[in-house]
Amino acid sequence: MSMNTEILAQGPKELNNPGLVLLLAQTPNAGKVTYLTEELKALGKIPGYTVVPISFSKNEQKTPWFEQLNPNGRMPALLDNRESKSPIRVFESMSILLYIAKTCDTDGAFWFKDDEDLQTELVSWLAFTHGGTGPMQGQANHFFRYAPEKIPYGIKRYQDETRRLYSVYEAHLSGKHDGQKKEWLVGGRYTIADMNAQPWVRMAFWAGVELDEFPNVSAWVERIEQRPATQAALKIPEQDKLSQLKADPEAAERMAQQASKWIMEGQNK
Amino acid sequence: MSMNTEILAQGPKELNNPGLVLLLAQTPNAGKVTYLTEELKALGKIPGYTVVPISFSKNEQKTPWFEQLNPNGRMPALLDNRESKSPIRVFESMSILLYIAKTCDTDGAFWFKDDEDLQTELVSWLAFTHGGTGPMQGQANHFFRYAPEKIPYGIKRYQDETRRLYSVYEAHLSGKHDGQKKEWLVGGRYTIADMNAQPWVRMAFWAGVELDEFPNVSAWVERIEQRPATQAALKIPEQDKLSQLKADPEAAERMAQQASKWIMEGQNK
Repeated sequence: MSMNTEILAQGPKELNNPGLVLLLAQTPNAGKVTYLTEELKALGKIPGYTVVPISFSKNEQKTPWFEQLNPNGRMPALLDNRESKSPIRVFESMSILLYIAKTCDTDGAFWFKDDEDLQTELVSWLAFTHGGTGPMQGQANHFFRYAPEKIPYGIKRYQDETRRLYSVYEAHLSGKHDGQKKEWLVGGRYTIADMNAQPWVRMAFWAGVELDEFPNVSAWVERIEQRPATQAALKIPEQDKLSQLKADPEAAERMAQQASKWIMEGQNK
Repeated sequence: MSMNTEILAQGPKELNNPGLVLLLAQTPNAGKVTYLTEELKALGKIPGYTVVPISFSKNEQKTPWFEQLNPNGRMPALLDNRESKSPIRVFESMSILLYIAKTCDTDGAFWFKDDEDLQTELVSWLAFTHGGTGPMQGQANHFFRYAPEKIPYGIKRYQDETRRLYSVYEAHLSGKHDGQKKEWLVGGRYTIADMNAQPWVRMAFWAGVELDEFPNVSAWVERIEQRPATQAALKIPEQDKLSQLKADPEAAERMAQQASKWIMEGQNK
């Protein structure tokens, strides 16, 4: 809450820029946020924003200045240098999405400003992805791509759980429970609930999971992928390097080994 | 959103009770919610509520009627049979806490109704626990207690990550980042951010993790444990069976083996 401004001043000078300052690395959780900021920029709801790329390999997210913004030392983190109030920090991708929606998307283009019931359903889906898909697919990535030894039990456990979580989206979109086929997770339109989930699901291949058995999910991934704001978000430097490796398994393996090195260094500290 | 009432009617008759109907099992995520409902009951903010215990061993959470309430097939889930509006479902513990706070705790005893900045910080801490502590401590439980083979890599990975997450609470409460020692996670008073985290942290021993190295966290756990509403919540049938096993390692081992059986049956399906 109360940030120590002297310690924060040890960070990059971009932290002084007005408005939204987004600290991110090449992760699905960062993509969630840039999907939203690019949509809002296109609609003229934010004048622009600052992206500060954070280097995993230099462990910048564990520096005292970064921990002023996110005590958990993870990307993304948000600093909002507001016009008429003191700066505020926001951490955890789900929390950042809700904050930007409420403060910038004031007429509710991507959330449900005037429908409390739909907003309740939206928060449930945000939390489902935040506590399920992200953490579990992340573990599948770890055992499938990064762990120094291949542990079949770990690979199978988390790939299976990732598939199970996808099957929850699939059942929902297909109308299995209520007979209503859906294009979007909540309320019949594109919202932060979708933005919160698609950046993980589009990267299924990195966890060694195929989307073939989830036709409604696949179509939904593609529907979001084709939006101009999504394409703009994916062009933010380094943001989408991983998904480009889908067509090049050897390069993917090299990247995984490189990443494994600092992941395991961090884990063994 | 739109529930199929015919399918829902296949569930227990308690689903017709007025007001909050909480479906839960003996899990920390259910404890989060009963901490709040018992606090609100003590303050006269809810007239009472219905608890429907769900049996893991019968896989009730995977039935079509339960999936009307939570498409993820997990506990807890909430049905609110409202007076003047149609019934609404809420799923994911974090979402249920926010829903009950906003609809029942209307003057904000346990959240920040009139302070948007504190509410933003509260949502960040809710999301940190929901996407971090819960899922990762759950994996530590799995590898330490339930997995049929002892996999040292898995045990160490998730116990270490659980400790790292606790160290985030510890640094925050100790005032490491801002020089302010704290009794509560957000805003100087007991809120749903604390309720969302303590039911996991108090069960550290089940994941094989000690709290000794986290003195501020230990004191905070105890502070919450001693509240009359917490004690009432923990008396809800079956709710606190596991923590009573702390003093009886052999009974804990038997319980873990019993649970392991249906966990592995579910995983291998």
